[in-house]
Amino acid sequence: MMPTKPTLNVIKIGGNIIDDPAACKAFLRAFASVAGAKILIHGGGKIATQIAEKLHVETQLIDGRRITNLPMLDVVTMVYGGLVNKNLVAQLQAHLCHAIGLTGADAGIVKAIKRPVGAVDYGFVGDIEAVDAPQIGRFLSQGLVPVIAPLTYDATGTMLNTNADTMASAVAVALVGDFNVNLVYCFEKKGVLNDPNDDDSVISTLDFAHFKTLKATGAINKGMIPKLDNAFGALQNGVANVTICHAHQLEQATQQLAGTTLKYG
Amino acid sequence: MMPTKPTLNVIKIGGNIIDDPAACKAFLRAFASVAGAKILIHGGGKIATQIAEKLHVETQLIDGRRITNLPMLDVVTMVYGGLVNKNLVAQLQAHLCHAIGLTGADAGIVKAIKRPVGAVDYGFVGDIEAVDAPQIGRFLSQGLVPVIAPLTYDATGTMLNTNADTMASAVAVALVGDFNVNLVYCFEKKGVLNDPNDDDSVISTLDFAHFKTLKATGAINKGMIPKLDNAFGALQNGVANVTICHAHQLEQATQQLAGTTLKYG
Repeated sequence: MMPTKPTLNVIKIGGNIIDDPAACKAFLRAFASVAGAKILIHGGGKIATQIAEKLHVETQLIDGRRITNLPMLDVVTMVYGGLVNKNLVAQLQAHLCHAIGLTGADAGIVKAIKRPVGAVDYGFVGDIEAVDAPQIGRFLSQGLVPVIAPLTYDATGTMLNTNADTMASAVAVALVGDFNVNLVYCFEKKGVLNDPNDDDSVISTLDFAHFKTLKATGAINKGMIPKLDNAFGALQNGVANVTICHAHQLEQATQQLAGTTLKYG
Repeated sequence: MMPTKPTLNVIKIGGNIIDDPAACKAFLRAFASVAGAKILIHGGGKIATQIAEKLHVETQLIDGRRITNLPMLDVVTMVYGGLVNKNLVAQLQAHLCHAIGLTGADAGIVKAIKRPVGAVDYGFVGDIEAVDAPQIGRFLSQGLVPVIAPLTYDATGTMLNTNADTMASAVAVALVGDFNVNLVYCFEKKGVLNDPNDDDSVISTLDFAHFKTLKATGAINKGMIPKLDNAFGALQNGVANVTICHAHQLEQATQQLAGTTLKYG
C-alpha cells in the first residue's frame, strides 16, 4: 500500500477580495487557520490599474487580459510583487501564519517564457515553463506558507506578468507528486452560477460536459471561462479536488462543503 | 579547537548604484561570482522619490532620513519590496545566482517596532527588534541567496521602512554565531575619504579614534556618519571585517583589498 500523502491546500484569492479591506481581512483570518501545508496565490485587484492611471500608464485589456508593456510591467511588479504581496504577508504574520512572499523569480520557483507574438502581442506576459516543486516543498517542510504574486521571470532576467488563475493551477499540478492537493479558487461569488444574474444559483458539482454546455449557452462567460479551463486542467493533471467558492466560505470549501466542486469526465 | 566557521559575505548596495543601470549590471555580475554564502541588502535609490512625485506623495527628509507617512509607506513597499527587489532577483537568476527576494516580513526574518514619536515623528519607520538568524541560515544552507529590501514589519501586521545600512549591520551581526561574517558596504565612492572633495583620498584603514576626529573636523559628515556608526557597531558586535568600497571593487573588497577597512579601538 502506498503511504498516504499529506494534504496541501493551494488557495487562490481574487483581485476583488484584495480590493475590499474588510473582506480581505476576514479571508486572511480564515486562511491563517487552515491546518496543514498551504499556499496562497493572489491576484492584483484594481490597485494596479489605479496606480497605472496616476502614473499615466495606459491600461489595455484584450478578452479581460492585460497587455503588459514595459511601463505596465513596472507597475505590476511594484503593485503585485511589492504593495499587495508584502501587505498580505505582514497581515498573515500578525495571525502567526509564517508567510513568505514570493514571485516566480524568488528561489526560481516559477520560470516562464515571454509569450510569442501572434495575432496579439501581449507584451511582457509569461507562459509558465517550469515550477520548482522540490524548492516549494522545502519551504512547506520548514513550516513556511508561500504567498505567491502572479509574476514570473525568464532566462534573460526579465520579470513577466502571469495570470493568477494559471499560476495557481500550475503550482497545484506541480505538487501532486508529493501531496494530495486541493485547489480552491476564492472570489466574490458563491461558486459557478447556473444563472449569472442569480447569485444563489450555485452549481454544487460541475462536470466537464456540463461546463461545455453552459459555455455554449453563454451562462458561463468572460473571465469565468479561462478560470474553469485552468481548473479542469488541474483536475486532469492529478489535483485531487478543485473548488470555486466565495472568499468567506474558505473553511468549508477546503472540505468541498461549499461552492462549486468540479468533476472531470 | 573550535571548528572553523564558514565565511558569509553580507553585501549592501547603495541607492546610487541601483539608479545607474550600467553600474548596477556590472555590480550584479560581480556579486553573482562571489563564492560561498552571501546576502545582498539593497537601498532604494531615487526611483521611490520619483514615483512618489508622480503619485503626488510628498517626500520629506530630516537629516537625510525619509519621513514615512502612510502614502509614502505604500510607495516604498511597492518600489523597494517590488520593483527594485524583484528586478535584482530576476537579473541575479539570469547569472545563475539562486536569489530569493525578501523583506523583513517574509518568513519573519527581520521584525521591528514602529519608532516611538519623540522630538521628530518619523512615521512608519521600523527600529529592528529581532533578526531570525536560524531562518536566514536555513535559506543559506539550501544554497539560496537572500536579497533583502530595507523593509520590516511589526506585530500588528504593518510594513515599516528601515534604513538599509542598519538592516545590513543588523543582519550581519545576527549571523556571527554561525559564520565568519564580512560586511561590505558598496556605494559610488572608493571608500571613506580624508578629503570629501578628493575622490582618491581613500583611507585604507580607519579606526574608531580616527573616525571621531574626522567627524569633529567635518571631513566625515551627512549620510556617512550613520553609515559608519552602523559599521563600527557591527565590528563591535562580532562581525569579522567591515569594508566600505566602490561598487566596482566588490571582488577585492570581500578580501579587504580595496576601499576602507574599519578597525575597532
